[in-house]
Amino acid sequence: MKNIKIKVPATVANLVCGFDILGMAINNPYDEMELRLLETPDIIIKHTDHFGLPEEASKNVAGVVLLKMQEHLNLKNGFEVIIHKNIKPGSGLGSSAASAAGAAYAANILLGNILSKEEVVHFAMFGEELASGVRHADNIAPCIYGGITLVKSSDPIDIIPLNTPDLFIAAVHPQVEVKTSDARQILKKDIRLKDAITQWGNIAGLIAGIEKNDLSLIGRSLNDVIIEPVRSILIPKFHEIKTKSLELGALGGGISGSGPSIFMITERKETAEHIARMMSSVYDEINVASFVYVSDINPSGITVIE
Amino acid sequence: MKNIKIKVPATVANLVCGFDILGMAINNPYDEMELRLLETPDIIIKHTDHFGLPEEASKNVAGVVLLKMQEHLNLKNGFEVIIHKNIKPGSGLGSSAASAAGAAYAANILLGNILSKEEVVHFAMFGEELASGVRHADNIAPCIYGGITLVKSSDPIDIIPLNTPDLFIAAVHPQVEVKTSDARQILKKDIRLKDAITQWGNIAGLIAGIEKNDLSLIGRSLNDVIIEPVRSILIPKFHEIKTKSLELGALGGGISGSGPSIFMITERKETAEHIARMMSSVYDEINVASFVYVSDINPSGITVIE
Repeated sequence: MKNIKIKVPATVANLVCGFDILGMAINNPYDEMELRLLETPDIIIKHTDHFGLPEEASKNVAGVVLLKMQEHLNLKNGFEVIIHKNIKPGSGLGSSAASAAGAAYAANILLGNILSKEEVVHFAMFGEELASGVRHADNIAPCIYGGITLVKSSDPIDIIPLNTPDLFIAAVHPQVEVKTSDARQILKKDIRLKDAITQWGNIAGLIAGIEKNDLSLIGRSLNDVIIEPVRSILIPKFHEIKTKSLELGALGGGISGSGPSIFMITERKETAEHIARMMSSVYDEINVASFVYVSDINPSGITVIE
Repeated sequence: MKNIKIKVPATVANLVCGFDILGMAINNPYDEMELRLLETPDIIIKHTDHFGLPEEASKNVAGVVLLKMQEHLNLKNGFEVIIHKNIKPGSGLGSSAASAAGAAYAANILLGNILSKEEVVHFAMFGEELASGVRHADNIAPCIYGGITLVKSSDPIDIIPLNTPDLFIAAVHPQVEVKTSDARQILKKDIRLKDAITQWGNIAGLIAGIEKNDLSLIGRSLNDVIIEPVRSILIPKFHEIKTKSLELGALGGGISGSGPSIFMITERKETAEHIARMMSSVYDEINVASFVYVSDINPSGITVIE
């Protein structure tokens, strides 16, 4: 195979109480990527979108992943990559992870599936390192595996795909900037043991709820007493949106990744649509532009279109 | 029904990384209790064992539970209770929880099953309050529900019974005293966020492993980076026993409750027996008397014998 076209899902990392360990792939929005295997060692990146991302290979998230694969796997081939990006950079919906994971995933297929899934994750993490300075798999893992994934450890890579409950997501991306580095710096280095115990009770409940498909338990467990109270300060109208979402029937939700997007989980699609309209109107009122998304969970991760 | 005889399992609380939230019922050791419904309002407690526990109702763990039931449910009846205790008080194997849970459970049956399981837990917790000063359900919940239970919250009571994997337990009770109050005081009030994240990754992995019956994942998740490093100081030979147990094939393990008992989880019964012999000889070498137990998981909690 010389050419491949793939569909790459957006992802929600830091799933409420699952800070740094739980992520989820969603069907909307998504990127499309085309990769072509070259006889020459060039890495050529083209963006058809207008986000102004760098196309020089060493500065591009997909490019740097392919450069690392070329180096570590002693490849003589190069790749041409065309990225049709819909997941907005800086949204907190796994935009850089999509480019990184898509590049590693598609290149591996073009090379004849020489890598395990964990190795694909390993290479994709170089893209995250370029984008955020941290080699993390919070978005990469659900993007590649689909559904909800637990990153038990990223060194060594230990990823556990969980059950995919039948749920819907409403997400809003307000056009305000939250830098990942600011979102990291604002966190306290020490926390109360008491709060940590509450948090791990919620995490345990969330995992049990996901595995048992117990939506009530999932809802009761979607509480973050440690990260959200601090980071939500950076996102205008966070509390109003969360409160109104719960009133409208959301099971729970929180900050997607390090923000500024906010996501809510619902049992029914109509509830998610209702919440999305509310989210949009809350930001309209304060004249902040926003994009809203309604989606189900993407169960299988990156898929090959052609 | 006027008389009932029940079998009440020992329990392991603070299941490694699941401090304050996860507990497990085991088949060995266990207590037996006989309850008789009286026409008079007396609460009569008798112990056939020789642990010297108080028999005055208001000072006895089972007695105080029955007094609270009498008061809150406006009972005209009393109860006579005969306790055949095998679970050693102060062992960290849920001895007080067994008496408390057994009293509430059996009394409820004699009263015609007027209480829900959560209400039985509610009353049993008064016994734990007498024994340790804290109304906790860490041991009560697995004792009543059986198997492995998640106490997501004890106020309001929110207990989630988990899957019961096919595992064995080796436990050793060295004859040293660890006071629950000391074990509590030694803990730091603040912990590192970094450690908390490691801990909740392990908890998430442990719950997923239990639910998926994935023994390798259970083993990889049985690590406690917060409580065990502090509390293990109170238990002589803890690290030697843990290291040797892992060498002998244990999936993992740690301190049972607040100690001094140590438990190890294994896939095969023979491995647990082997570990139990090692545990015994380690304490023999330093002239500390010890009791060892080999058990499987008790899947159904307290059971009626007669």
